[in-house]
Amino acid sequence: MSRAFNFSAGPAALPEPVLRQAQAELLEWGAERASVMEVSHRGKAFMAMAAAAERDLRELLGIPDGYRVLFLQGGASQHFAQVPMNLARPDQAVDFILTGSWSEKAFADAAHFVRPRIAAGAQDGGFRAIPPRAQWQLSEDAAYVHIASNETIHGVEFFDAPDVGAVPLVADMSSNILSRPIDVSRYGLIFAGAQKNIGPSGLVIVIVREDLLERSAGRVARIFDYAAHAREDSLLNTPPTFAWYLAGLVFQWLKAKGGLAAMAASNDRKAAMLYAAIDGSDGYYANPVDPAARSRMNVPFTLHDAALDAIFLEESRAAGLLALKGHRLVGGMRASIYNAMPEEGVEALVAFMRDFARRHG
Amino acid sequence: MSRAFNFSAGPAALPEPVLRQAQAELLEWGAERASVMEVSHRGKAFMAMAAAAERDLRELLGIPDGYRVLFLQGGASQHFAQVPMNLARPDQAVDFILTGSWSEKAFADAAHFVRPRIAAGAQDGGFRAIPPRAQWQLSEDAAYVHIASNETIHGVEFFDAPDVGAVPLVADMSSNILSRPIDVSRYGLIFAGAQKNIGPSGLVIVIVREDLLERSAGRVARIFDYAAHAREDSLLNTPPTFAWYLAGLVFQWLKAKGGLAAMAASNDRKAAMLYAAIDGSDGYYANPVDPAARSRMNVPFTLHDAALDAIFLEESRAAGLLALKGHRLVGGMRASIYNAMPEEGVEALVAFMRDFARRHG
Repeated sequence: MSRAFNFSAGPAALPEPVLRQAQAELLEWGAERASVMEVSHRGKAFMAMAAAAERDLRELLGIPDGYRVLFLQGGASQHFAQVPMNLARPDQAVDFILTGSWSEKAFADAAHFVRPRIAAGAQDGGFRAIPPRAQWQLSEDAAYVHIASNETIHGVEFFDAPDVGAVPLVADMSSNILSRPIDVSRYGLIFAGAQKNIGPSGLVIVIVREDLLERSAGRVARIFDYAAHAREDSLLNTPPTFAWYLAGLVFQWLKAKGGLAAMAASNDRKAAMLYAAIDGSDGYYANPVDPAARSRMNVPFTLHDAALDAIFLEESRAAGLLALKGHRLVGGMRASIYNAMPEEGVEALVAFMRDFARRHG
Repeated sequence: MSRAFNFSAGPAALPEPVLRQAQAELLEWGAERASVMEVSHRGKAFMAMAAAAERDLRELLGIPDGYRVLFLQGGASQHFAQVPMNLARPDQAVDFILTGSWSEKAFADAAHFVRPRIAAGAQDGGFRAIPPRAQWQLSEDAAYVHIASNETIHGVEFFDAPDVGAVPLVADMSSNILSRPIDVSRYGLIFAGAQKNIGPSGLVIVIVREDLLERSAGRVARIFDYAAHAREDSLLNTPPTFAWYLAGLVFQWLKAKGGLAAMAASNDRKAAMLYAAIDGSDGYYANPVDPAARSRMNVPFTLHDAALDAIFLEESRAAGLLALKGHRLVGGMRASIYNAMPEEGVEALVAFMRDFARRHG
């Protein structure tokens, strides 16, 4: 056996050099004579590593002063609850832009805490586009506007931060953070589960404008209060130390690869190659998403005959192309091509797809 | 450098064979051609591993039918909030037995959700004993009674489940779960952060009597609702997959070591050896806890002259005895001797302590 090209939507492939370093030092980390998993989060070595990870993330994303970075737990789904808890009063409206299953879930979960509204939604078209900004019906009194900057199931992605005026923009960037440069100052709060472009599952990164931390004052229980976590530098309670460490290694790997501009160029090439193979297949493969909103991270596609799906999955797996099964909501296939997927992986997939079409034409 | 005896209170030492196995298969797990961190939590391989981990835990603890086991996130501190959210109505009383800092924290955090009461507390004596059961002033209308079965900072431990009648007993077992056999049927709910006796930080195990899951109905947001997590077999959202996997390896290691009866015998020997060294030091070392309540997991002790503390720490570290610094609340030293600490580690510590006393008499 040997490692294969892993197209899993998440938990997703990690950069192999990161895994190799973690493997080499799994029993003895630095000068600690213990695993990084076995040392106190309040010890000098861990705190130095944690601070370096934050510095590297700030450098990669160009996070301005006036924003705090939190390393938390619970998955993005927990933050579908924590964001409204922290940023809005219980009777306040929050505007949601629905572009797929993840923004829908966030919308549904927010109802326990606030008054969520659908300001725009592409659900009637089966989530195949970003609703045009001119059609968004934003409330002036909304606590914030929520978007999912990339939808892993429907393969729909925002490529710019929409202008929502003075109301803070909140983005669930779980599946495309660090895939290209962004202008953090356009956002009030960004959150991202780690298990696509950051590290292993169990870690969530929150980037929040400092003034928004005041909104929770006196209302939110300590452990769910972003302000409390910010005051304690994310050490309010024991953080997921191994996940934090691995995220730090991923940030170092990204810097060594040339940072986010280099990642964006590579991600653009990978996505262009794959969509070209789909679009150039004479209808053998199809992706239904508006080309302007096609995700560069998750590429769902169907075969012209669904009876071939099982054979495609079996043969692709045998060819070392893993986890291509599409989500049950949309069926077909899905290739997730996050930062850690090398261009050779997409080349191998495209070659396989062409060969498969020829053999099963 | 080489691995040393690690007395960290948590994140704490893990069994070396567990780390070695994780290291060996970190890049390729089973037949997956990927790391366990890189595969879907809904794939066959992960789900089989997860189910085996639960089976092994059930076997080790003798968890009866009628109890659910949940693998969650957030640390024990998050469950200081989630337990009252799930098991009590907002206006309901909850009885707390205060035996140290962790039960105090749980008491304070519960106030956001319920009406916490101190039914008994050893705080006036500096947390050096378990208040006698006869003195507990339990409310008949309490939703549950909360104890911390072991206090890591003050070194105070319950060795039996107290009889609290028909009211469910809730135990924070973060720091002594799996250290000896227990009668799970005496508890309504047990929760434990992983980072002492289970695995790495970022995972919390909740063992809950099924009828108590009904208490949250319609009140608690999905992501904080134990019943919702139980319905989804802890896959309501992406779990901390690597921590779950490592916990499973720890459970296998415990079974191979002879299960909890064998661990209890070893833990008793380790604690007896260390307390004997303290008590037999003619006052050079001291532990202030009532011998009937002395923790077998965390042994705080002071030197007769606090001016020697820094030297003790420096020399012990050089001797390969790590992380002996006591918590700032109580000062002095603390040796945490969880399951993964071999008896040889305590022997080495005791020899060092005797030698140190001789040299710095």
